[in-house]
Amino acid sequence: MNLVPNPRLFSFIGGRDGAWKVTGSRVIAGEGLPPVERIDVAPGDIAAPPWSDGWVLRGATSNERYVTRPEKDLLVAAQQGPARPPHALAVLIPIKKNDRWWGLTQDERRGIFEERSGHTRNGLELSPTITRRLHHCRDLSRPEPFDFVTWFELGLEDVTAFDLLLDRLRGSLEWTYVEREVEIRLQRS
Amino acid sequence: MNLVPNPRLFSFIGGRDGAWKVTGSRVIAGEGLPPVERIDVAPGDIAAPPWSDGWVLRGATSNERYVTRPEKDLLVAAQQGPARPPHALAVLIPIKKNDRWWGLTQDERRGIFEERSGHTRNGLELSPTITRRLHHCRDLSRPEPFDFVTWFELGLEDVTAFDLLLDRLRGSLEWTYVEREVEIRLQRS
Repeated sequence: MNLVPNPRLFSFIGGRDGAWKVTGSRVIAGEGLPPVERIDVAPGDIAAPPWSDGWVLRGATSNERYVTRPEKDLLVAAQQGPARPPHALAVLIPIKKNDRWWGLTQDERRGIFEERSGHTRNGLELSPTITRRLHHCRDLSRPEPFDFVTWFELGLEDVTAFDLLLDRLRGSLEWTYVEREVEIRLQRS
Repeated sequence: MNLVPNPRLFSFIGGRDGAWKVTGSRVIAGEGLPPVERIDVAPGDIAAPPWSDGWVLRGATSNERYVTRPEKDLLVAAQQGPARPPHALAVLIPIKKNDRWWGLTQDERRGIFEERSGHTRNGLELSPTITRRLHHCRDLSRPEPFDFVTWFELGLEDVTAFDLLLDRLRGSLEWTYVEREVEIRLQRS
């Protein structure tokens, strides 16, 4: 069996170790996750930590599923800029969408995602200093509790704009298809 | 670690055992696969057989990536019909697309896949008795040699139409993005 992991696969390990200290956590929809003190982010398929309350979420970065070329060009342009010091804050948001979402066709999902919910359009209003990495969990070799894990890194000065973005997205039509969502705020330590 | 496999994951095991006898194999693009006598299809993540020339390809069925609602409705309607005896023949076609394809945005990929190559349109002309199951390999936990594995089952009477479809697709713009493709013909034994 091939034991080398997918190079785009990452593990988010909740437990007592790790570079990121949990400063807050809340359940947005469905079942929560056991509270943990710290989260570590590591490439590959990492086993859950030995503590009974530890957990791991895994996901792989992949090609974008809804973005058009003009949107992609705007996203890439927004990410350009001078090198900056590492961000002090991170937010981990795992999300599971319901069967109704996955039963939609590509054009229906795109219509809800962008034309009716403005997912990318709203995201582009974010401060370009916020970094976002989306991980897909649904087509991994073993079942994962969520469909997506998004990892954001941001500065203290970005928090207000970031919270506004979350509010907007969570009020959108797209979010009526979200059946489980947890939000974990972190600080680099 | 969660050892239960993704319920949509399948393994295609090339070796000396299995329900399907290889009757022919050819390389369409790129590197081939070691020749095998038989292929078995099994749910889950199966280890490679112990023979030095054996191999396993793995992939998970998933949501469709390009099909629109009208196309989906046509596909579903085409698959309706009275129950039939199991097909005598199968064809296994693993495909890898190049980095140029994966660098395209969703609208660009859809435009090539359907508007310019007629992938679904041509597929709909197939005899409705041919069954097709597409497996995605790219976002599994470990790297796979191909991006997709398609498994077709068909009757002897479908072979001419099937060959015509393969010829059409392989002459399409979409196929200029295929960098590796193998075609293995099988007979139920």
